[in-house]
Amino acid sequence: MSSYDPKTFQATIFHDRPAAFAAGTDSPRAYLERCLAVIDADEPRVRAFAALDPEGARAAADASDARWRDGRPLSAIDGMPVGIKDLLDTKDMPTEMGCAAYHGHQPTADNVMVAALRAAGAVIVGKTVTAELGGAHPGPTTNPFDASRTPGGSSSGSAAAVAAGMLPMAIGSQVGGSIIRPAGYCGNFALKPSQGALNRGNRQTTSMSTHGPHAGSLADMWQTAIEIAARTGGDPGYPALRGPATLPAAARPSRLIVLETQGWAELDDTSKAAFEELLAQVTAAGGELLRRADHPLIDAFEQATGDAKHVASAITGWENHWSQRDLIDRAPDGVSARAQEVVAAAEAMTPGDYEALLLTRAQALAAHHACAPLADAMITLACPGPAPLWPGDTPGAPLAPRPTGDPIFNYATSLVGAPCVSLPLLAVGGMPVGVQVVGQPGEDARVTAIARWLNENLTPVSLA
Amino acid sequence: MSSYDPKTFQATIFHDRPAAFAAGTDSPRAYLERCLAVIDADEPRVRAFAALDPEGARAAADASDARWRDGRPLSAIDGMPVGIKDLLDTKDMPTEMGCAAYHGHQPTADNVMVAALRAAGAVIVGKTVTAELGGAHPGPTTNPFDASRTPGGSSSGSAAAVAAGMLPMAIGSQVGGSIIRPAGYCGNFALKPSQGALNRGNRQTTSMSTHGPHAGSLADMWQTAIEIAARTGGDPGYPALRGPATLPAAARPSRLIVLETQGWAELDDTSKAAFEELLAQVTAAGGELLRRADHPLIDAFEQATGDAKHVASAITGWENHWSQRDLIDRAPDGVSARAQEVVAAAEAMTPGDYEALLLTRAQALAAHHACAPLADAMITLACPGPAPLWPGDTPGAPLAPRPTGDPIFNYATSLVGAPCVSLPLLAVGGMPVGVQVVGQPGEDARVTAIARWLNENLTPVSLA
Repeated sequence: MSSYDPKTFQATIFHDRPAAFAAGTDSPRAYLERCLAVIDADEPRVRAFAALDPEGARAAADASDARWRDGRPLSAIDGMPVGIKDLLDTKDMPTEMGCAAYHGHQPTADNVMVAALRAAGAVIVGKTVTAELGGAHPGPTTNPFDASRTPGGSSSGSAAAVAAGMLPMAIGSQVGGSIIRPAGYCGNFALKPSQGALNRGNRQTTSMSTHGPHAGSLADMWQTAIEIAARTGGDPGYPALRGPATLPAAARPSRLIVLETQGWAELDDTSKAAFEELLAQVTAAGGELLRRADHPLIDAFEQATGDAKHVASAITGWENHWSQRDLIDRAPDGVSARAQEVVAAAEAMTPGDYEALLLTRAQALAAHHACAPLADAMITLACPGPAPLWPGDTPGAPLAPRPTGDPIFNYATSLVGAPCVSLPLLAVGGMPVGVQVVGQPGEDARVTAIARWLNENLTPVSLA
Repeated sequence: MSSYDPKTFQATIFHDRPAAFAAGTDSPRAYLERCLAVIDADEPRVRAFAALDPEGARAAADASDARWRDGRPLSAIDGMPVGIKDLLDTKDMPTEMGCAAYHGHQPTADNVMVAALRAAGAVIVGKTVTAELGGAHPGPTTNPFDASRTPGGSSSGSAAAVAAGMLPMAIGSQVGGSIIRPAGYCGNFALKPSQGALNRGNRQTTSMSTHGPHAGSLADMWQTAIEIAARTGGDPGYPALRGPATLPAAARPSRLIVLETQGWAELDDTSKAAFEELLAQVTAAGGELLRRADHPLIDAFEQATGDAKHVASAITGWENHWSQRDLIDRAPDGVSARAQEVVAAAEAMTPGDYEALLLTRAQALAAHHACAPLADAMITLACPGPAPLWPGDTPGAPLAPRPTGDPIFNYATSLVGAPCVSLPLLAVGGMPVGVQVVGQPGEDARVTAIARWLNENLTPVSLA
């Protein structure tokens, strides 16, 4: 069953369709029907969707058809079928957040990013499964390349829908590692934007979350992000995502910092070997690699994020605990034991604990910034090897700590609000393993340009 | 009708009740009934409430009675009747935000501050009128001291309910000047906390808003704020309000910076004379006053906020325009022309315009911070003289620009996220005119201590 090969894998892409739509050789409705056919065939196995609205999508696609026929598309993604992580409000579909307490919850308004996608002509096909409340408690989604494995989380359905070829793009969100990790496990391209660069609308209640696209191609990833930014700006108080109106030109990196993070020590040998083989290609192409032993500032950043897993998790746990306690009080049986454990851990913190964590985060940010002049970007893994098996919780046994895999390669880069792009350049044992390129906050376009160069110039590495 | 005298005005206070509740000589239910009697008598004229829930309040007060009888109150504000500005969600009353598009809107959960008040034992009596969506379009509330005048806005009902003696405390919110200005027009004590110091819960979508108490006394103002902070912390990424568990001891200021703001040039002579008479008492008590001519850094701060009205308004307009456009699209007849004008103005901005405004704000913050060593606090008016007359819009005529009065003394201090306490120390023509004490971000307790000293040691000034 595990049969993924990054050299031959064909994702569903959209960016070549506008020319065909304009020429009349293809149409948004026909494109949508092809997506719906894949969904029909694979959804019983993949279970990527919390809600589907084929008829609403057909109506939206027909409206897009008319715009293309009239030569007046709303944007370069007019007619693109998309999925929306079920944490984001949609006015025409329930928003259940993977949480029984929100069963049947129907918002009255779209999250601002959803409104932006509609304004750009995108076709909202459905809501994709999220781990409960964006946390660790998994939904039903399976990894499209091996149904016995997790797709990752919490953007489980978005990553899986793209991996299964059901959609060219789906929106995810990340606080710890919820975009980049599932993208890595599922062979997606994905952008976790700079903190604040894409407006989260009504979802501003944590200081480290971002919303961003999973896609079958870098072009669709970037195009989606920049079209959203044009219609919603950034979070309050932050500059919006900036960059060219289409995928940035490839930029060859002169120097890359190879980031270890807390994940390095836990990485399996095969995944490490595959990554090193890929890095050797960078060196062969004339790129210089810097590691933590090569410069005190790199080591300082690794040290400043040496406890990132705890710091990031505790910050977010604290920020969520007021509202989640209220939710638990209102619906005690509607929130998983796994989520209730997180709330209880946060309730053991003091305000001073939280402020000390904010200081640690500020120190990590300073250390990250100090590395800016040393290299064009950082590179590390998107996930700690291939997606782990997930047989489900065993009744009566302690809860498995990480059913959707470990964000251990993501905490450091999330903590500093860095833009991260996941690239599907590795396979281990027939399963995808992503690589992430990381920049300074605000450098989303630069990181994408470097990611493009790597994607176009390196040969993906598969190890058994 | 205009008959306010700050020397004799008796506000409704709560802070002396816990002793009486504990002794059994008074009870939360009896206290509530006294508040409800004032509401019954004055609400037809004042119109402070968007919703009232006397029966829910009675049940909560009875529960508080039982806790006090058992000697187990939840906090020092257990049993305090409170009003909640109708921008904040309440699970048991509609939240209409003064906006026809939200008519009958019933949230499923409390805003985190409301949940905190309930957890501290406070008795939620009703929702207080807000100007539409927290903007400039007024609700029906009148000034309790002269029904032909505005109570100020956007926290119109909270300021008026406290001024009318209906309640000892009501929650307001401020982006430009929506707590301090109505508090000034209505003779309240009020705290606009440091940016981020009190958690806004699901209301994080603007970078300059705060929630804070209007009260009939400094003691109730502070007690409410600190009890809330203990139960909700601050906004994500911010330290929570810090300070003593009861009203800080009075602190005599050695030096105060007299802040002009953009308001000085527009101030009427009588209000200016009343303020100068008050300031003369500070000097007589040995306090030094510094003005913009006395130090280049003070002048630099005045200059850096010389366009604060535009900067603050445009930042907030931009941050709100995505969601408000969506609201207008969904309910074109449900949003006032006044609010639609604000959205249209924001839509004429570019992302670069917004980022330039953020830079101006950062520069103002730096200039404010540079003044910290010069004095213990800043002092200025809370509002530009007494509340203006508000006869209502004239059909067919252009919309009056500021029906709830001008936040011209508030933009500068809002822009820099400073803690501000409004004190009812002046009257002009029989109407209240507030004075605000302003500190550095995080200095809420210090500002309250200085405000307490001023309140206890200066004689209020009334001019005809």
